Amino acid sequence: MSGHLAVVGLGPGDARWLTPEAQSALDAADALYGYGPYLDRVPARPGQGRHPSDNREEMSRAGAALAQAAQGARVAIVSGGDPGVFAMAAAICEAIETGPPSWRALDVTIVPGITAMLAVAARAGAPLGHDFCALSLSDNLKSWELIERRLDAVAGAGLVIALYNPVSRARPWQLASALDRLRRHLPDATPVIFGRAVGRTDESITVTTLDAADALAADMATLIIVGSRATRVIPRPGRPLVYTPRAATEASA
Amino acid sequence: MSGHLAVVGLGPGDARWLTPEAQSALDAADALYGYGPYLDRVPARPGQGRHPSDNREEMSRAGAALAQAAQGARVAIVSGGDPGVFAMAAAICEAIETGPPSWRALDVTIVPGITAMLAVAARAGAPLGHDFCALSLSDNLKSWELIERRLDAVAGAGLVIALYNPVSRARPWQLASALDRLRRHLPDATPVIFGRAVGRTDESITVTTLDAADALAADMATLIIVGSRATRVIPRPGRPLVYTPRAATEASA
Repeated sequence: MSGHLAVVGLGPGDARWLTPEAQSALDAADALYGYGPYLDRVPARPGQGRHPSDNREEMSRAGAALAQAAQGARVAIVSGGDPGVFAMAAAICEAIETGPPSWRALDVTIVPGITAMLAVAARAGAPLGHDFCALSLSDNLKSWELIERRLDAVAGAGLVIALYNPVSRARPWQLASALDRLRRHLPDATPVIFGRAVGRTDESITVTTLDAADALAADMATLIIVGSRATRVIPRPGRPLVYTPRAATEASA
Repeated sequence: MSGHLAVVGLGPGDARWLTPEAQSALDAADALYGYGPYLDRVPARPGQGRHPSDNREEMSRAGAALAQAAQGARVAIVSGGDPGVFAMAAAICEAIETGPPSWRALDVTIVPGITAMLAVAARAGAPLGHDFCALSLSDNLKSWELIERRLDAVAGAGLVIALYNPVSRARPWQLASALDRLRRHLPDATPVIFGRAVGRTDESITVTTLDAADALAADMATLIIVGSRATRVIPRPGRPLVYTPRAATEASA
């Protein structure tokens, strides 16, 4: 089988975060697939097919891209950020596992990208400077009880927490509930960062505290980082620096 | 103060993972600082100062870079991977917090990079496709008891685990002990990935299981990903695909 599928991470909005490997994969593709707004970030090229699809159509998008690659085409399917973090790479693997056996022989390359938490952390300082986790707050594909159990476990163990998918039209209350849950474990003054549209022209980065954090300040384009007991804020002109020291003590967990 | 400090993530070994933003920051610098082997990845340029230093000299390196920037120079300090993940950005923040008050007024930019766990995950499939964490196994700056407590918490809660700094000359037994600890929580067949020197010419990626995982297979250049109960392996020609599905059930945690 001569086809090829690249699962390409575009990074967050700024083109200066698109790696040379990702650029090459986009240039080499006969056809591009992806969620519409991500595909819009890739300039059109004559002769290159474009197949935008909707937000919650990951599995049909994955199947269509694999089917075209299986016919011998060079196909790229794009993700914002990194394709391996709450994004298309897992959907592609699922489609390969459940699809025609011939798909297992396909040449598949995952092209990593800067994931949102790294970009938001960079803007704020170094909040992920010590042990941390990435949790999706979406309860479309897992129960809310499981999400709460994970929040309890990681906050109790002193990990910094990056929250992906904090809110959507169909999930309006989950973020407020998660913040309340974290307030059981962490002090009021725990630093919290809301990073919205990082790398885009309408980027905003807000540093607040857990007691003051307002779920209404987040939307679908927001990534939230909740510090640990060890996370520190350095006041300075303009936005403060937020970081988690490299050393940790029992008291910090 | 006219100086500037960029804390630059080079990504893992492959230059195709160096972002355009990182390349620009390196090009614009009057002086480069960093751990010797990372600095060796940046081609020399006439007139640009180079200040390599040793592995465990983060704080003196941070101080020297900040001092030169405070004198008005454009300084870049480099990290492998992402500077915000167990790397220089937190050391720079620590140095700013404890240093001369004038350092707080310095223009500091953190330039994110592809961190090792994203690159290793991309080679393997999508093992970080659902909730996950990144833990450093170094007990230089935290107690071994705290590390065990965190391993217990995250394995018990069903997170996939990326282990940074698994081993060094001074820390020979920690990885074997951590794997034993995880065996209390996770089935023998749990997928484990050893990613060594990812992106370099001597890269090796090994997929094994928790019962067979051998700590002696890791060295300082290795990043380890331990799956959750939900992580799956798809056999295929060549190396299998490893992924964690987007959906999670209580039974998977």
